[in-house]
Amino acid sequence: MTEPVFKRARSARAKQVREAAILDAARSLGRGHGVRDVTLTDIAAAVGMHKSALLRYFETREQIFLKLTAEGWREWSAALRGDLEGRAHATADEVAAVFAGTLAGRPMFCDLLAQAPMNLERNVSIDSVREFKLETFEEIALIGGELRRLLGLSELQTVDTIATATGMAGALRQMATPGPRLRELYESDPQLGHAVVEVEPRLYRILAAFLAGLEDAAS
Amino acid sequence: MTEPVFKRARSARAKQVREAAILDAARSLGRGHGVRDVTLTDIAAAVGMHKSALLRYFETREQIFLKLTAEGWREWSAALRGDLEGRAHATADEVAAVFAGTLAGRPMFCDLLAQAPMNLERNVSIDSVREFKLETFEEIALIGGELRRLLGLSELQTVDTIATATGMAGALRQMATPGPRLRELYESDPQLGHAVVEVEPRLYRILAAFLAGLEDAAS
Repeated sequence: MTEPVFKRARSARAKQVREAAILDAARSLGRGHGVRDVTLTDIAAAVGMHKSALLRYFETREQIFLKLTAEGWREWSAALRGDLEGRAHATADEVAAVFAGTLAGRPMFCDLLAQAPMNLERNVSIDSVREFKLETFEEIALIGGELRRLLGLSELQTVDTIATATGMAGALRQMATPGPRLRELYESDPQLGHAVVEVEPRLYRILAAFLAGLEDAAS
Repeated sequence: MTEPVFKRARSARAKQVREAAILDAARSLGRGHGVRDVTLTDIAAAVGMHKSALLRYFETREQIFLKLTAEGWREWSAALRGDLEGRAHATADEVAAVFAGTLAGRPMFCDLLAQAPMNLERNVSIDSVREFKLETFEEIALIGGELRRLLGLSELQTVDTIATATGMAGALRQMATPGPRLRELYESDPQLGHAVVEVEPRLYRILAAFLAGLEDAAS
């Protein structure tokens, strides 16, 4: 009676391989074209499956990208904490620079940060949203621990800091990538110079002022 | 030979009346249902026109909502400046409270602030984006004047302040309105308490810290 167990294991393993291939395809397409323009048909074509077969692995296009958003949170959080944990002390300016640099260096994650509440969370099952929220809260708590240690922030202040960093990273990324047609207009028309947005320097300035203000209130 | 001129004027007037009726219908539907769920067919039905006739007045659904975003900027900017202009002096905290209160009190405008760069600007003509950008820059300059007068901010700092206020208002609004299904989940599951977002208090805390940090750097 071991065969069915073995078969189930083999089939569970095959399922994982398929899911990983689908996520890989969606990740490559999202990086190349921007998340908004990637359809379920594009993903199915890239992974060499029929769309109906793909829907045996994921509920919707949005669930695929919500999984990539959760993956983005874990990967970004690890990189951010990897930098902060190596520091015995840090100023508000230094912490702001680490946040801005690690976020701006992950353009697809910034795109997903804006897409998640607006589009992705609204087109998946309740269970998928719940799992996604619990995964992100875990990363928020870990990042919060470093902010408390280095800057002495309260829990509410750490949540506000991470909301500002990720909220503005998502918003600035949308403004910074208006597509080639509009970028050309902004760069060529002197009246529209302010429409050209660079994510990292602006995110750094905003977070540096915000964290300085929090420190100021605490002292 | 005055008749053609009169006819043109009458027809221009009729066109304005029709455009205003279309914008009124889109505004009511957006307030009631949220901007994302309002289609061109919904707007045409509400105003009693066929969709093809409606497209003689506006390029796309997105152009209608981009017009409402520009209108939102003018209306919000006037209310914000109306409050600030009455003050001979103001602290960073007081200015933050005026920004947070006037933005949180305009939920559809907050929704449009997030929709504009992500969806609306990408689905209209170049000329429509250009007109929209120039209109918003005019309001940004006017608000910036008040921020300079009251808090002594530089031009770059006023632009960063308005970007933070409007960017976070848009992002927080998306998080605060996940739909009835998810809001019920967030409120009932103790592990998900952090997912319940209130726009005004969080926006106030973020802007108060940010403006205090800018003042701190200046002194």
